[in-house]
Amino acid sequence: MRPNQRADNQPRPIKITRRYTKHAEGSVLVEFGDTKVICTASVEESVPRFLKGQGQGWVTAEYGMLPRSTHSRMAREAAKGKQGGRTMEIQRLIARSLRAMVDLKALGERSITLDCDVIQADGGTRTASITGACVALIDAINALRAAGTLKTDPIKGLVAAVSVGIVDGTAVCDLEYSEDSAAETDMNVVMMDDGRMIEVQGTAEGEPFSHEELMKLLDLAKQGCHLIFEAQRQALA
Amino acid sequence: MRPNQRADNQPRPIKITRRYTKHAEGSVLVEFGDTKVICTASVEESVPRFLKGQGQGWVTAEYGMLPRSTHSRMAREAAKGKQGGRTMEIQRLIARSLRAMVDLKALGERSITLDCDVIQADGGTRTASITGACVALIDAINALRAAGTLKTDPIKGLVAAVSVGIVDGTAVCDLEYSEDSAAETDMNVVMMDDGRMIEVQGTAEGEPFSHEELMKLLDLAKQGCHLIFEAQRQALA
Amino acid sequence: MRPNQRADNQPRPIKITRRYTKHAEGSVLVEFGDTKVICTASVEESVPRFLKGQGQGWVTAEYGMLPRSTHSRMAREAAKGKQGGRTMEIQRLIARSLRAMVDLKALGERSITLDCDVIQADGGTRTASITGACVALIDAINALRAAGTLKTDPIKGLVAAVSVGIVDGTAVCDLEYSEDSAAETDMNVVMMDDGRMIEVQGTAEGEPFSHEELMKLLDLAKQGCHLIFEAQRQALA
Amino acid sequence: MRPNQRADNQPRPIKITRRYTKHAEGSVLVEFGDTKVICTASVEESVPRFLKGQGQGWVTAEYGMLPRSTHSRMAREAAKGKQGGRTMEIQRLIARSLRAMVDLKALGERSITLDCDVIQADGGTRTASITGACVALIDAINALRAAGTLKTDPIKGLVAAVSVGIVDGTAVCDLEYSEDSAAETDMNVVMMDDGRMIEVQGTAEGEPFSHEELMKLLDLAKQGCHLIFEAQRQALA
Amino acid sequence: MRPNQRADNQPRPIKITRRYTKHAEGSVLVEFGDTKVICTASVEESVPRFLKGQGQGWVTAEYGMLPRSTHSRMAREAAKGKQGGRTMEIQRLIARSLRAMVDLKALGERSITLDCDVIQADGGTRTASITGACVALIDAINALRAAGTLKTDPIKGLVAAVSVGIVDGTAVCDLEYSEDSAAETDMNVVMMDDGRMIEVQGTAEGEPFSHEELMKLLDLAKQGCHLIFEAQRQALA
Amino acid sequence: MRPNQRADNQPRPIKITRRYTKHAEGSVLVEFGDTKVICTASVEESVPRFLKGQGQGWVTAEYGMLPRSTHSRMAREAAKGKQGGRTMEIQRLIARSLRAMVDLKALGERSITLDCDVIQADGGTRTASITGACVALIDAINALRAAGTLKTDPIKGLVAAVSVGIVDGTAVCDLEYSEDSAAETDMNVVMMDDGRMIEVQGTAEGEPFSHEELMKLLDLAKQGCHLIFEAQRQALA
Repeated sequence: MRPNQRADNQPRPIKITRRYTKHAEGSVLVEFGDTKVICTASVEESVPRFLKGQGQGWVTAEYGMLPRSTHSRMAREAAKGKQGGRTMEIQRLIARSLRAMVDLKALGERSITLDCDVIQADGGTRTASITGACVALIDAINALRAAGTLKTDPIKGLVAAVSVGIVDGTAVCDLEYSEDSAAETDMNVVMMDDGRMIEVQGTAEGEPFSHEELMKLLDLAKQGCHLIFEAQRQALA
Repeated sequence: MRPNQRADNQPRPIKITRRYTKHAEGSVLVEFGDTKVICTASVEESVPRFLKGQGQGWVTAEYGMLPRSTHSRMAREAAKGKQGGRTMEIQRLIARSLRAMVDLKALGERSITLDCDVIQADGGTRTASITGACVALIDAINALRAAGTLKTDPIKGLVAAVSVGIVDGTAVCDLEYSEDSAAETDMNVVMMDDGRMIEVQGTAEGEPFSHEELMKLLDLAKQGCHLIFEAQRQALA
Repeated sequence: MRPNQRADNQPRPIKITRRYTKHAEGSVLVEFGDTKVICTASVEESVPRFLKGQGQGWVTAEYGMLPRSTHSRMAREAAKGKQGGRTMEIQRLIARSLRAMVDLKALGERSITLDCDVIQADGGTRTASITGACVALIDAINALRAAGTLKTDPIKGLVAAVSVGIVDGTAVCDLEYSEDSAAETDMNVVMMDDGRMIEVQGTAEGEPFSHEELMKLLDLAKQGCHLIFEAQRQALA
Repeated sequence: MRPNQRADNQPRPIKITRRYTKHAEGSVLVEFGDTKVICTASVEESVPRFLKGQGQGWVTAEYGMLPRSTHSRMAREAAKGKQGGRTMEIQRLIARSLRAMVDLKALGERSITLDCDVIQADGGTRTASITGACVALIDAINALRAAGTLKTDPIKGLVAAVSVGIVDGTAVCDLEYSEDSAAETDMNVVMMDDGRMIEVQGTAEGEPFSHEELMKLLDLAKQGCHLIFEAQRQALA
Repeated sequence: MRPNQRADNQPRPIKITRRYTKHAEGSVLVEFGDTKVICTASVEESVPRFLKGQGQGWVTAEYGMLPRSTHSRMAREAAKGKQGGRTMEIQRLIARSLRAMVDLKALGERSITLDCDVIQADGGTRTASITGACVALIDAINALRAAGTLKTDPIKGLVAAVSVGIVDGTAVCDLEYSEDSAAETDMNVVMMDDGRMIEVQGTAEGEPFSHEELMKLLDLAKQGCHLIFEAQRQALA
Repeated sequence: MRPNQRADNQPRPIKITRRYTKHAEGSVLVEFGDTKVICTASVEESVPRFLKGQGQGWVTAEYGMLPRSTHSRMAREAAKGKQGGRTMEIQRLIARSLRAMVDLKALGERSITLDCDVIQADGGTRTASITGACVALIDAINALRAAGTLKTDPIKGLVAAVSVGIVDGTAVCDLEYSEDSAAETDMNVVMMDDGRMIEVQGTAEGEPFSHEELMKLLDLAKQGCHLIFEAQRQALA
């Protein structure tokens, strides 16, 4: 049996709190069970140098963990003087995923930075981050629209992400830490709410995985994402 | 009149939430009005190299701000590759202040790291950090005592901190951001609950300050700290 | 029609030159068309600190590009003072992939570092790197076995990687640079020679991709990897 | 009895040598007993980006210690690749203190950098730095006035600094190293020559300090600063 | 007898392969025996800031070694986060040497960067780098001339470099690694093809060297360089 | 005519002040005309890791310039976060030169670090550094001998250095800044007091130099060094 008596295809309770902090144009606390991430969207009226004068906007992301968001304290990246490979990998994934939901031309020459800071980690921080950042991004866009800065809506749809994996030979959805650390295969799937995929990242941690296992994981991911879209829609309602 | 109709000697509402996150030995959300800081205390069964074999423990601190804890987004220090001077100065202050409340011999050869991460900033982040870290530290110590690891109590007393300053010629207590950015003089005072002081840091931002002004500020700080000790005691009750 | 009249499921010519440089225990020049990577395997009789005394070995990887391996010169990472996110992501992928083909217990307390340095880039540098590193790793292991250092063979099988993607609506195998930069979806697949997968990393660069497209890409990847295994076997013969 | 038979309120002999090196617009060797600091003031006809176009100037400071200015050799910060927290804290203090004596509007759009490099350390390097930098700054300003670049005098007054502290229960002025390392409380006071204060930084190193002790220290600091102003005036005569 | 039966004044076989990689304006693989270096010349239509608007061009160089170009693996400088002193010293030498063969005014406001990356090291990597970079630079200049970008030829002559040294009391030319590591004196000489010198860098590794020894080494260097010029001319024919 | 009416073979006045600062085992202020460098020798009772257990000592060096030692202010290397190539090159040269005068076996398992910090620069800072460091090193060794720590004298002889160069077609000795910046060729020579050479580093800044010019420069360097040995001997007397 899974921890908390979850069914194999059942994500943890998803909770999305909007307007969590007061300064950001979009600010969300997203919870996937005990995993808690603050996602803020910050608008800046300029674009990075490589996009100057091209009549389009930019969406980027940064990711961090509070040193004691984890079981044992991790060294603070600011104190170590560099972001680790895992951090870089995750923030690149978040940024790519969120860019997929925005028409950058329609956004105009402005940038939105999504900061995802994990305050409590229990597995799935990157999928929670993408899920929460999606809502923060929409809030920031809506603020621009309400202010009359944006005439058209650059949002193409919702983006959600979930982890799936094979634990003790069974495919399960939304792994918490105790499962994640024992998983043979771990996969993160990022989807648009039309059912198409933005990212599929499957990794054999122990044994390689077969085509059949991959199919099973994709199916679970699809189910999980649809529940997450539901939670996003309710939060935005 | 001050913002929110506060009296000159009146701090903002202080709120201290214990057990805010689940992994740390001590974990506190401290709020001074709209300033919100997560303070965690992490115990490690070793000491820094310069203390090895001396039969005493260590208390240290690190400080950070989420990039969008502030009005406009600040660059992430981990991404810039170094902590700024202000960050270093604040975390050194927090560490010194907290060490003053611990008998390091009685702590034994172990270290406690206090991480103070600002999730929303509205002035007074360093004083809120010290105040919250005091409670997190006591929780961590109590956990060590409950586990039988510590036989005697190394805590000497409570530590609280408050900012005071001169705004438009008037001495006020616990400046929020709009006051802080207009203050002529800004002072942070860290006190023990026996009324003695651990740190006094007064800075003339605009005009130098006179001995009389300094006396007034010290008096306000004393009043403010006593209210903060009250909040700490209630939280710990 | 694809560049060089390739069929959609046809990788570029694969060339694997062993013993390319003289100092490394394994040294391979791998060519996927115009993409050329030097892969060396270096054996060290120790393991990283986190594995000390656990009776197992370690396999890791580092990746780099010569500044002018690309169309326009890239800044040298050593001069910039840090490795970029893309570099980190790729070297973590190479390392995970290669670890999957080694029984780390059977390797004993020693480390093998795979350095993959791109001397000419034309798309697919990470898949060429994994493919070449597999051969360099086997040469290094065989050297240890020939020297009597290793009594049993820790190699579990061959590992190969190929990129697949959707270009102008068509799924194709082993994208070269001109295809890669125009691809709507880009996927890297790492396989064991028993047909199971180690990594699947699909990214929508433009439009999200459907389940059907994903199936098509996985099929092409399988075909491509089998040709690459053939090239590896011939090189090792 | 204090080292060198000093009275409790007696600073060490202060020596200020102007035009110590030949390139800087202001160059001073300041000696507080065995503490020796070279302070140079360098004028640049531009301001930092955040001040561009605001019709005002800037005064900043950097601080360093020669590796063997201390009892045992310290690692060179340039070789370590970063300035430590203590260095940052001190150079921020020097900069704030010196800015207080300059009318930045009257300075015009130019910057003055004060470099304080300790060649021999025996306690009180930050207070000696501020004291010497004040004289170097005046020399640089006078050079600008002599050249006709500055029409009005932006100098508001002299700035001096002294350390005071409680050693073996006694409040003393201008601690040398042997006293400093044994002090229960250490306080640095920066004053304008009209008697008002720019900075007060008191720290309990061991025991917290009482209001009475603080009063005593402030009184000693005032006495010390007045002797230092005298030394500055003689040097400038 | 020297390794490989070389006479004292005999360099190793020199091999220069042009157009070694396809993207760079000039790309050379240079081999001095087992020492192999890829030298590329990259043209950029701008100059560093300190030369802006001065009507002249710039030639610079960067040097690196693949981690396993050496007997035992060296840490990757990009991963360590900085280039070592030896690397800096060598790339400064290469840049100065190559600048000496170019009329920077005639080059116009453009820069050429020479990247010298050692793929296999067996002594003399800096002299091989200079020798190969000379040919790559000429190819890049010729490409600019063929494209009509450059009307006049900025090349003043060929530059070659060779190491000489005293090994077991005997002066020898072009030391390979086994000789280099045993040399008492090591000298690198960079020459123009008119016989004049650009750099002479002699270092006593063990015993100091006499004037007579220096004369002998200079004579051997001259002989060696003339053979190298021959190899350059043949490669360029 | 040269500045200050110097003859072509005449170095600037050399002044060597011993015991310049009080903490270091050896501390020298060396002046070559207006070039002033503080050279300290610091003894540590350990050796770098690569020498552990080999029964020999080590001599190393670090070099720095105060930001305003030069005509216009240079950025502080500690603030920039790295030492530049020129700094690295110079400190490596100083270290090699000084190691040549010490029998490292006789020194025993201890290290001596020579810190050369330029407080005023007017050309020839590296040669002044070597010259002054030689005296500081001897003072440190003599302190070890006086303390009975060293039974035998590890000093093999004096080391001195001088710059020579070709300015306006004339070979001159000990270039000051105005000459240095106009020199066609610049050469630094490091000698032992038995007349043998430790380093010869000649660089064509403008035109390449001929064998005859090199001979002339070597002759001038020899004359210059002999005068410098005289100054060292007098200082040590």
